[in-house]
Amino acid sequence: MSTPTVEKDKSGRQFKVKDMSQADFGRLEIDLAEAEMPGLMACRTEFGSQQPFKGTRVAGSLHMTVQTAVLIETMTALGAEVRWCSCNIFSTQDHAAAAVARDTAAVFAWKGETLEEYWWCTEQCLAWPDGSGPQLLIDDGGDATLLIHEGVKAEEVYAKDKTLPDPSSTDNPEFKIVLGLIRDGLSKDSQKWTKLAKNLVGVSEETTTGVKRLYDMQTAGTLLIPAINVNDSVTKSKFDNNYGCRHSLPDGLMRATDIMIAGKSVFVAGYGDVGKGCAASMKAAGARVTVAEIDPICALQACMEGFTVAPMEDGIKRQNIKPQCDRFIFPDGHGVIVLAEGRLLNLGCATGHPSFVMSCSFTNQVIAQLELWNERNSGRYEKKVYVLPKHLDEKVAALHLPKLNAKLTKLTKDQASYINVPATGPFKPAHYRY
Amino acid sequence: MSTPTVEKDKSGRQFKVKDMSQADFGRLEIDLAEAEMPGLMACRTEFGSQQPFKGTRVAGSLHMTVQTAVLIETMTALGAEVRWCSCNIFSTQDHAAAAVARDTAAVFAWKGETLEEYWWCTEQCLAWPDGSGPQLLIDDGGDATLLIHEGVKAEEVYAKDKTLPDPSSTDNPEFKIVLGLIRDGLSKDSQKWTKLAKNLVGVSEETTTGVKRLYDMQTAGTLLIPAINVNDSVTKSKFDNNYGCRHSLPDGLMRATDIMIAGKSVFVAGYGDVGKGCAASMKAAGARVTVAEIDPICALQACMEGFTVAPMEDGIKRQNIKPQCDRFIFPDGHGVIVLAEGRLLNLGCATGHPSFVMSCSFTNQVIAQLELWNERNSGRYEKKVYVLPKHLDEKVAALHLPKLNAKLTKLTKDQASYINVPATGPFKPAHYRY
Amino acid sequence: MSTPTVEKDKSGRQFKVKDMSQADFGRLEIDLAEAEMPGLMACRTEFGSQQPFKGTRVAGSLHMTVQTAVLIETMTALGAEVRWCSCNIFSTQDHAAAAVARDTAAVFAWKGETLEEYWWCTEQCLAWPDGSGPQLLIDDGGDATLLIHEGVKAEEVYAKDKTLPDPSSTDNPEFKIVLGLIRDGLSKDSQKWTKLAKNLVGVSEETTTGVKRLYDMQTAGTLLIPAINVNDSVTKSKFDNNYGCRHSLPDGLMRATDIMIAGKSVFVAGYGDVGKGCAASMKAAGARVTVAEIDPICALQACMEGFTVAPMEDGIKRQNIKPQCDRFIFPDGHGVIVLAEGRLLNLGCATGHPSFVMSCSFTNQVIAQLELWNERNSGRYEKKVYVLPKHLDEKVAALHLPKLNAKLTKLTKDQASYINVPATGPFKPAHYRY
Amino acid sequence: MSTPTVEKDKSGRQFKVKDMSQADFGRLEIDLAEAEMPGLMACRTEFGSQQPFKGTRVAGSLHMTVQTAVLIETMTALGAEVRWCSCNIFSTQDHAAAAVARDTAAVFAWKGETLEEYWWCTEQCLAWPDGSGPQLLIDDGGDATLLIHEGVKAEEVYAKDKTLPDPSSTDNPEFKIVLGLIRDGLSKDSQKWTKLAKNLVGVSEETTTGVKRLYDMQTAGTLLIPAINVNDSVTKSKFDNNYGCRHSLPDGLMRATDIMIAGKSVFVAGYGDVGKGCAASMKAAGARVTVAEIDPICALQACMEGFTVAPMEDGIKRQNIKPQCDRFIFPDGHGVIVLAEGRLLNLGCATGHPSFVMSCSFTNQVIAQLELWNERNSGRYEKKVYVLPKHLDEKVAALHLPKLNAKLTKLTKDQASYINVPATGPFKPAHYRY
Repeated sequence: MSTPTVEKDKSGRQFKVKDMSQADFGRLEIDLAEAEMPGLMACRTEFGSQQPFKGTRVAGSLHMTVQTAVLIETMTALGAEVRWCSCNIFSTQDHAAAAVARDTAAVFAWKGETLEEYWWCTEQCLAWPDGSGPQLLIDDGGDATLLIHEGVKAEEVYAKDKTLPDPSSTDNPEFKIVLGLIRDGLSKDSQKWTKLAKNLVGVSEETTTGVKRLYDMQTAGTLLIPAINVNDSVTKSKFDNNYGCRHSLPDGLMRATDIMIAGKSVFVAGYGDVGKGCAASMKAAGARVTVAEIDPICALQACMEGFTVAPMEDGIKRQNIKPQCDRFIFPDGHGVIVLAEGRLLNLGCATGHPSFVMSCSFTNQVIAQLELWNERNSGRYEKKVYVLPKHLDEKVAALHLPKLNAKLTKLTKDQASYINVPATGPFKPAHYRY
Repeated sequence: MSTPTVEKDKSGRQFKVKDMSQADFGRLEIDLAEAEMPGLMACRTEFGSQQPFKGTRVAGSLHMTVQTAVLIETMTALGAEVRWCSCNIFSTQDHAAAAVARDTAAVFAWKGETLEEYWWCTEQCLAWPDGSGPQLLIDDGGDATLLIHEGVKAEEVYAKDKTLPDPSSTDNPEFKIVLGLIRDGLSKDSQKWTKLAKNLVGVSEETTTGVKRLYDMQTAGTLLIPAINVNDSVTKSKFDNNYGCRHSLPDGLMRATDIMIAGKSVFVAGYGDVGKGCAASMKAAGARVTVAEIDPICALQACMEGFTVAPMEDGIKRQNIKPQCDRFIFPDGHGVIVLAEGRLLNLGCATGHPSFVMSCSFTNQVIAQLELWNERNSGRYEKKVYVLPKHLDEKVAALHLPKLNAKLTKLTKDQASYINVPATGPFKPAHYRY
Repeated sequence: MSTPTVEKDKSGRQFKVKDMSQADFGRLEIDLAEAEMPGLMACRTEFGSQQPFKGTRVAGSLHMTVQTAVLIETMTALGAEVRWCSCNIFSTQDHAAAAVARDTAAVFAWKGETLEEYWWCTEQCLAWPDGSGPQLLIDDGGDATLLIHEGVKAEEVYAKDKTLPDPSSTDNPEFKIVLGLIRDGLSKDSQKWTKLAKNLVGVSEETTTGVKRLYDMQTAGTLLIPAINVNDSVTKSKFDNNYGCRHSLPDGLMRATDIMIAGKSVFVAGYGDVGKGCAASMKAAGARVTVAEIDPICALQACMEGFTVAPMEDGIKRQNIKPQCDRFIFPDGHGVIVLAEGRLLNLGCATGHPSFVMSCSFTNQVIAQLELWNERNSGRYEKKVYVLPKHLDEKVAALHLPKLNAKLTKLTKDQASYINVPATGPFKPAHYRY
Repeated sequence: MSTPTVEKDKSGRQFKVKDMSQADFGRLEIDLAEAEMPGLMACRTEFGSQQPFKGTRVAGSLHMTVQTAVLIETMTALGAEVRWCSCNIFSTQDHAAAAVARDTAAVFAWKGETLEEYWWCTEQCLAWPDGSGPQLLIDDGGDATLLIHEGVKAEEVYAKDKTLPDPSSTDNPEFKIVLGLIRDGLSKDSQKWTKLAKNLVGVSEETTTGVKRLYDMQTAGTLLIPAINVNDSVTKSKFDNNYGCRHSLPDGLMRATDIMIAGKSVFVAGYGDVGKGCAASMKAAGARVTVAEIDPICALQACMEGFTVAPMEDGIKRQNIKPQCDRFIFPDGHGVIVLAEGRLLNLGCATGHPSFVMSCSFTNQVIAQLELWNERNSGRYEKKVYVLPKHLDEKVAALHLPKLNAKLTKLTKDQASYINVPATGPFKPAHYRY
């Protein structure tokens, strides 16, 4: 497999996308999405004139979709210079990638990347043409963060005794690629990742997997930069994960299979926020839903909603049928079709979460990036993982209410005093679960 | 606008479709649909070897989709010689049309026909190359039936005093086309429709609009052939209309707009079976639903389900935005987008009802066609409108249960005697509403 | 068991109730129910001044509840002289019976009658102190109708050869009582039931069981009076049976057991209108619901709503625990508690259907009684079973909409003409299923 | 109003309940509740033989219901010597109070206490006949905790300069009573509350209000004892508050009003866990639901579930109709009925939460009490507020799954290692919101 080649537009901005001729179509869809993303548009209105990110280099590794395009262009509207890659080999919407590459930022992403191409894109996203790297990082799943940390680690080992990373030291095919990529870079610049990490002000991480890695690094004392855990903003985890999946699971199933959901048996593995949204939509569509859980609390929640809770079987064999379509065969001979290799069905087979719920998630990202940048010299954020303060979480929600004609009740001074909260919030203690 | 040209395959079978190269893709989807249409497949198993339609000419005017392909090929598996057109200018799935045209039957249909093309297709569907016409008709919406009846009427007038139909006598643009088409035919063969009607054994009609026209003709005494009202089989109206729309409305909305349904206000005009399905799915997806009704019984049903019931406003202006997308502007200035010209969103913007529910509808069609054909000489069916007897309706349902692992309870002889129904059904009186 | 004794109030009106001191409490609840029964109250307003039932003798056998009290008092407000009994040994609300007995009509009913007492009450209800009988009958389940028809049959046999009914000729314990009661009456007046039937103008029947008996008699040619099938008015069967049970099943379960429904397994035997309402409320409360059906159409409907469809087992033994509470033991040893002897849980263990839905049912009764009475000399109603014409069914619904702030859309003349229905209804063909 | 008198049984145990003759009935219901409270019964099995509370004095102020009886008798089964009062003047179930008073513990509670009687009961509950006080406290709403803290505060002031608490210093009628009660006690024993607080090992608090007071005291530095916040165990707040109210709101409404919920407009003030449960059950019953919120995050959640979000109006006047029934009149003249003085409808008008969900809450209480007692000398708990560690929360859930036939999936060692959690839990980080 040959290495892809970076292209450049007239202005010299780099990119690598599937088909630049789809840019007009992408722009049309981005325009429509803006109407459904009131939080991001409000950020442009509130902060645009101040240009808080003026000249700031921002790298992002996050599904390159229409909704992400609105995030990217909110960052550029606030002054940032952005490079972007996708965080999943199947999730790029090529028309969105084309529109952003043409109009706004350096994009390296296409639907159906190989794993080698995926990590090449990630590396491009982090490497400014002038040799510098990002000052801020937006990550989803933690792959960009992983590459930087593994790079620094390898450079430290190399500095000691010239030992190079050894891809054959791991069985994980993806990690082999990462080690190979770092090894190849060491020969050119043995301080590349160390310099990059030093100039990086912080990262805001989008999702559970990436957040877990960050907390593990914090515990191990190896975290190199301040990190904001966007995933655990209420307006992210409770909205994107739950309501987003409730919307986009049936969407993906319908587009991928056109099969009637009513009357079918559906098995949902895990009843966290994502599982809650998935199970709710399948039940609403008339399916019979069984839930598997390891956590007794989530299992009891599933019971309370009328779901059968039963364990997953193992001993399953996998048979490939066609790309993104595998049959998993059970010991008794029956089989189930697994779509999108069990990855993100809604992005692989449909168009992902709807714009409105992504606006909640991404407004958290913009606010997290502003926090990291504005406080870059104050010492407020150490090399630890933080969640956004509750008043910012509440602000994200408030920015989305007018679009739905929802009107808040306002506390009087007496009422606020009686229940002992500020009349303008935050209204809940930190541990409140919503 | 020029008239389309009929094409022929090697065997001499006629067709006119968008793109024959999509036939393989169509076949793949037809194969998948067969697994979801147990009623039709059971008909092939039960009746295939007897070839009840051997050599019978059958014409069909019904959305030329993947599911309809399974219906067509069930008819041909039972021996029929089939010609087909779509009953809606937007509803053809071109890959399904190509597969059927290549493999099975004469098809005249493509997505995006003009009204002129639409009626040309309808006429082709009814005209066998040998000058004969259909012996059986499957209709949806009654356009094919209308054309035949208007043709006969015009020929009767013409026979009296050579008066030709006058397109300028009507304001209805579509009826202008029908009159023109009949007028042009009269010069070639002034008995064309009369002969065709004489050889037609009967029609089975799929949907509400067509059924209404049939009852009106029955009342007026102008109905020329026996008709079976498939629409009012329980396994059709209660399943296709209600559960089908419950599935395919969100599907169509998601594919057409990618807009999050949760939190939005949805207005459902009418709370019949279709409205019930639409309102249920919008509520389930988290929308706030308002229902408009003229019928107080349906309005009270809407109340019982928690919907707001409010009247429709009028005084609305229409502004075209792009094809299949219009904005209707209200007196206060706000507007709503109307998709697919207010026609069948689920077919125009998505892939229509899922196969499973269409299998219920179409198995009724096959059984109705068998009834009409088997009783063609018995005098059982006069020139009136009939519904299928309840035991056939129950049979259609029973054919679909095993696929969903549903197991019926069987009445013992004593139980059947106690409630005074046959142990094998029918179980309900004719007026039962389900 | 001794025979109960009829009591009389100061005016001479007869009654037999549990505890007359509960009359005030009953009146209070009747007052509250009136606010929730807009259809009945509208009948009082519309017809009260005309006194259409002035001096008419009306007998009723129908659960003697608070809601029935509003029905009785609507009949008396229209001029009728009413006698009443309950149609179920457990369903009387004693405070309602007391209030009506004190203020309005002759009542013979109490909660927990023996079967002997039950039939004694039924007989009292039909026997005016002056020796005459009812001119109109409101029946629920058909027991009063049965008694009259069995009485006439026995008198015919007796007239031939003095043969008396023989209670030992049947194994059915309840029918033994009926035969004994008729036998005992024959010695006093051998024409009692014959005279009664001759003066009876008609019956309006409330529920499925009674309607089935009526149609059986119509088929057998033994029906002695015109009958209106109120059960199959849409505003009855679709509302009382479905929405009523959806409300009152959880109510009855909660009051009887205080058991949490969420997480429990619920088995619903039958998916008709009653089963649909029951299954819907159990699902909504978080239970896992399994449905048993003999009818494949209803079974497929259950599948479409996500219910498991599985057959009922037999071989079950019954163990009495305490009154209205039995354990049914399955072959594998597990057992289920059956409440209210499997009869009407919502009446036996709670307060029955809520007033609003009963107002729909009972407004049909009032309108049926008006039809029978107004047409008593016109010959319109023969000795057959009739349903109410659709415009009266729609009227019942319309009377209930304002209470829920529901506003109908009105057809313009053009719209009505286009869809070919009267602008003021009826809006649907007779076979429409809602 | 005269002061109530303490009664004694033959063993000398004190009590004051409404009607001791209801004890048998209460025992019957307690027996039934035990079958629905698997968590508490599992605690008896696991800890009963060790008698961890042997001889320990435990006071409880918590709705004296059937379910609470099972909690009390779980504490006594573990060796505790218990005194109990209710924490709400309307919430006692007199038959449950009688059964416990007769068989198990000292109870001071009846339905319909005056405020004076309420605080008298609270004081009795804390005062052992031998002059000692509780070693452990179970509180709900914090009234018992408040009385102790106010008592200590008053004794400190009195010790300085003999100043007595002055009821006229407050406008709050309830606080007047508290101050009067403390003042009257000071003359008899000026160290009563100080000694009591010194011997108190800790308190476990059941609900939001009480927890808020505890955190306020912790912040102010005035908290005198360690406290465990049971309310914020997931198995409490997410189950009792949400699923409990979802069950018991319709129960209370049905018993109090018998009004049909379908079709009605319902206004839910606040969309926290309680509001979520209430709104869900009203929607499920067919009502149209409007939600008021001050918190934008909760407001956006309400939008996502399809609820209208609109502000509460003020300017409302209150008109008393009868006990527990008030009309609140709005500026435009319309009014709403407020039941149970806006307090706990489900306890005031029905039988409260079902046993199963209370078993979750109360198993947390037992475990919290065990923690406080077992660690009383270890210094683990300071004078602060704590939540239970997650593995105990998960244990509570696990104890309730078998009853619902729910089967957990077990992590393999590899799987646990891959996602980096112990194979036996805890499975989630502390901040996880469920």
